[in-house]
Amino acid sequence: MSEEGLLYSLKHVVVGKPIASSHAHHERLSRITGLAVLSSDALSSVAYATEEVLRVLILAGTAAFSFASPIAFVIAAILAIVVFSYRQTIYAYPTGGGAYLVSKDNLGELPALVAAGSLLIDYILTVAVSIAAGVAALTSAFPDWHLSRVELTLGFVALLMIGNLRGIRESGRIFAIPTYFFIVTTLLLVGVGTWRALAGSATPFPSGEPLATTFQPLTLFLLLTAFANGCTAMTGVEAVSNGVPAFQRPESKNAASTMLVMAGLSITMFLGITLLAQWYHVMPSDKETVVSQLARAVFGGGFPYYAVQAATMAILVLAANTAYADFPRLASILARDGYLPRQFMNQGDRLAFSNGIVGLSLFAAVLLVAFGGDTHALIPLYMIGVFISFTLSQAGMVVHWRKARVRQWRTNAAINGFGAVVTGVVLVIVAFTKVFEGAWIVLLLIPAAIVVFKTTKTHYDHVAAQITLRGYAPQRRFHNTVIVPVAGLTRPVVEALRYGESLSDDVRAVYIDVEPGQTEKIKLEWYMWGGRSQLVVLESPYRSLMEPLLQYIEDVERERPEDYVTIVLPEFVPARWWQQLLHNQRALLIKGALLFRRNTVVTSVPFHLLR
Amino acid sequence: MSEEGLLYSLKHVVVGKPIASSHAHHERLSRITGLAVLSSDALSSVAYATEEVLRVLILAGTAAFSFASPIAFVIAAILAIVVFSYRQTIYAYPTGGGAYLVSKDNLGELPALVAAGSLLIDYILTVAVSIAAGVAALTSAFPDWHLSRVELTLGFVALLMIGNLRGIRESGRIFAIPTYFFIVTTLLLVGVGTWRALAGSATPFPSGEPLATTFQPLTLFLLLTAFANGCTAMTGVEAVSNGVPAFQRPESKNAASTMLVMAGLSITMFLGITLLAQWYHVMPSDKETVVSQLARAVFGGGFPYYAVQAATMAILVLAANTAYADFPRLASILARDGYLPRQFMNQGDRLAFSNGIVGLSLFAAVLLVAFGGDTHALIPLYMIGVFISFTLSQAGMVVHWRKARVRQWRTNAAINGFGAVVTGVVLVIVAFTKVFEGAWIVLLLIPAAIVVFKTTKTHYDHVAAQITLRGYAPQRRFHNTVIVPVAGLTRPVVEALRYGESLSDDVRAVYIDVEPGQTEKIKLEWYMWGGRSQLVVLESPYRSLMEPLLQYIEDVERERPEDYVTIVLPEFVPARWWQQLLHNQRALLIKGALLFRRNTVVTSVPFHLLR
Repeated sequence: MSEEGLLYSLKHVVVGKPIASSHAHHERLSRITGLAVLSSDALSSVAYATEEVLRVLILAGTAAFSFASPIAFVIAAILAIVVFSYRQTIYAYPTGGGAYLVSKDNLGELPALVAAGSLLIDYILTVAVSIAAGVAALTSAFPDWHLSRVELTLGFVALLMIGNLRGIRESGRIFAIPTYFFIVTTLLLVGVGTWRALAGSATPFPSGEPLATTFQPLTLFLLLTAFANGCTAMTGVEAVSNGVPAFQRPESKNAASTMLVMAGLSITMFLGITLLAQWYHVMPSDKETVVSQLARAVFGGGFPYYAVQAATMAILVLAANTAYADFPRLASILARDGYLPRQFMNQGDRLAFSNGIVGLSLFAAVLLVAFGGDTHALIPLYMIGVFISFTLSQAGMVVHWRKARVRQWRTNAAINGFGAVVTGVVLVIVAFTKVFEGAWIVLLLIPAAIVVFKTTKTHYDHVAAQITLRGYAPQRRFHNTVIVPVAGLTRPVVEALRYGESLSDDVRAVYIDVEPGQTEKIKLEWYMWGGRSQLVVLESPYRSLMEPLLQYIEDVERERPEDYVTIVLPEFVPARWWQQLLHNQRALLIKGALLFRRNTVVTSVPFHLLR
Repeated sequence: MSEEGLLYSLKHVVVGKPIASSHAHHERLSRITGLAVLSSDALSSVAYATEEVLRVLILAGTAAFSFASPIAFVIAAILAIVVFSYRQTIYAYPTGGGAYLVSKDNLGELPALVAAGSLLIDYILTVAVSIAAGVAALTSAFPDWHLSRVELTLGFVALLMIGNLRGIRESGRIFAIPTYFFIVTTLLLVGVGTWRALAGSATPFPSGEPLATTFQPLTLFLLLTAFANGCTAMTGVEAVSNGVPAFQRPESKNAASTMLVMAGLSITMFLGITLLAQWYHVMPSDKETVVSQLARAVFGGGFPYYAVQAATMAILVLAANTAYADFPRLASILARDGYLPRQFMNQGDRLAFSNGIVGLSLFAAVLLVAFGGDTHALIPLYMIGVFISFTLSQAGMVVHWRKARVRQWRTNAAINGFGAVVTGVVLVIVAFTKVFEGAWIVLLLIPAAIVVFKTTKTHYDHVAAQITLRGYAPQRRFHNTVIVPVAGLTRPVVEALRYGESLSDDVRAVYIDVEPGQTEKIKLEWYMWGGRSQLVVLESPYRSLMEPLLQYIEDVERERPEDYVTIVLPEFVPARWWQQLLHNQRALLIKGALLFRRNTVVTSVPFHLLR
């Protein structure tokens, strides 16, 4: 059993003390802090969205770059539609309306589980993509570190995991720094870049190592792929609508304003970076990000350049960190509904969240290793989950308005309906253009997640039916026969015998006779140490210790069917963890063999080793 | 606890039923069967020894090949010395004298542990090297399979592991076939080859792909390296001296004759193959073994060629199989002496041997993967352990004769002393020439093994002192306070309460108040289901379920220091293994938290789920 003890102490050391109820409600968010806390995911995606568009267009030659700005404007328009659509969710679900809750309320179980599966996968990918992009910002500034890309990403995952296990509280002030630092540096980049471009002092940036590509014709499919890639700019916009109850009063109004500001910033930065990339002739490269090249071109290196890179990396790590709050929270809601194991359910201790945090980190680490820590390789997986949850969430809102029939419900339903159609179309485009690039993994993982949810739920339902007291007539047993397997007379054995005697007046010490000399010795010593227990010596023709013992227990049960049978085992509690490997093997075997026997209870009497 | 049950059933399925005592003694060996059973390891090494010599000499150009036969004669002479030296062990230790036992008897603990560590590593390498060489014989005949070399070796390891877990008994008849098949085909190869060479009809064999090498001058170091490689021909000669008690009466005499026959065969085959390789100008290659090229040159392909390859492969797999008997046997002896965990000690069930078999297979598999299933790469690791045990064993015999002072003890001591000096010199040469080629791994592993042995022994000694009844005055406790943590009223909880009431008249059901409504419900239901148990409701300011419970248990212990405190937990026994993941998490935590508390016993009352 020491492993459990070890596990527990380990968790306690890493995780820290439980949180008091009073600490659970952290300070309410103002609009300023709300923007910082809830928009890092949405804003940070502009760091890689433009690059993902250009990487596709370059396949058709640099002339195709002229399509970048029309695509960016379409994406900006859709982003505006999505934000207006989500604004309505903020007012309709002032207690927080995630895609799972909205779908469950309005669309039923299966759509809700599709949304839940998509969201969990989405959170994992948020961690993987944001950290990969953050490391790309780092290695752009310090190209020597490029070779250790995977190691760097895993280092960040480990840092976030440990930080969250120990419990970084979502303190607005700490979060405000990187978010506003990013907003300021990026707006400065866009502003100075535009001014220089308009003033005619923009000089094309000579890319060190442009991407090696094989030429492809400029097809509709290529343009749709570029568009789908650019839609990464939209990831994370829903965060504000999930976090409504965290705002100061009036919660919905503050959240809605924050969301509008976030959308304005997001659109400005995305369009700005895309237009500048065209003006400055930035070429996507495997060694340096587009934003890094742009910053170098606009500022010519030096402090402003490093500030842009540092801000980009900081907000991307922050964005990854938001998934560390979202994933365990959704897992906890799913566990409460019976769709995930109970250990994900928050029950006061931090433990429940710890399981979610460790799970999230492991999955993200697997993805980062499998895809070589490459943002670009991970993007095709990212979009599917995001747009499934967008679409389901908006569709759920349409049903919500039809049921609620508040004033203006037709207008509201129309806005959300339009949002659902637009995001649905994007979803189809993403699935169509990305399925062979890796999106198939997610298209398999979502049904797999749903199978897990349904199986878990079914099992808990079955258990509930089996443990109910309704119609239960317990069979009363009063007497207890205690059996203590004995391999020799030692302190732990004698202590087990004495404990057994405190339970019952019928304690039987069972000794297996494999060495005749030993048996005589035990019989002699029994007068001294046997107490009220009766010594039973069993023959073992096959020299096996287990078979005769199990046979004897069966005999006792048959002899006294109205009794409990309790097997009392002495168990060493080692002083150091590795000593566990040297003890208790037989106890483990006996427990394993008796596990499926009814009315047999196995008890371990601990004997604590001092060294 | 289901994992243990699963583990146990799994072991039972794979391992099969326990062995009856009567089966444990297999039939005694005649000289004919004894040679088959005990010499496969020694004889099989001629399949690769010549090649290992040539692979070194070729570095100095083909002219250096003329040194192959002098080296082979020196090795043959040393082999004869070693065999004469071991012949004395056979008479001195008629119950079997392995290097560990001889060293322990005569040299003391540390040399014995050095021998034990060397032997365990030696057995692992016997498996790895023999299987690698066996697969080389196979891929020489079927070159297309060369690419799957590592997979093939792992397949053979898996086969041997499963076969030995299920219990292939060492039946002389089955073992006789490959051994005598190998002896016959190899002697035929040597005979026909020599006849054709003397008759002048030997034609140089054009090697397909000779080894690509960089030229080195013919230094003494190179010659010593070639010599050290050739000494692999000696591995396994000690097997007969370990197996004396398995022979028919007179055991020692039969064993000694068998050893002489084995030595004669081994020397004939090794010298024959080496001389033929020179005459037929066989060049070592990465694609085809020397023996395969030789057989092709002598027989010109066809049935006799495939017979040689099949026989070589069969005896090598058989040689690997001998380690599957030796490793668990030595581990069992070490465990009996307290140097390895008790689970390696044979206690009637096959389980003890199973641990050894699985351990051996895993280590061998790791080596095969790490060294790409390449015999040549593994050889440098092999020799160190073999010659350490040779040297210690012979040195131990010298001390034995000095102590025994039988007739002719001076002569006997001189023979073993000469053997010890010769093997010791070989050991130094092997260590000197091989240390940077991989032998350093073994030179680190042997001390590591000794640390494990000593630590284990020290711990068991400490435990023995802690559990002795000498001077033990147990504190008598009579009363038992039973605590049942209760999260709600369900069948498993009510069954746990009833069980608790069979143990004590003081049963306290502890409920943690986290939801006020629930608490009222439980209090109402208590009249119906509470029985003789007392309901204790605890407040939890931090919403934690664990902290108040642990606090309460501590209070009870302080209140009744003379009592046992028994925590009774309902525990789900799932119908399917994966359901275990969905239950018992809190029980696990409670057990872990209580593990290090004295006088607190935790009992699980199983509740069997039907689905």
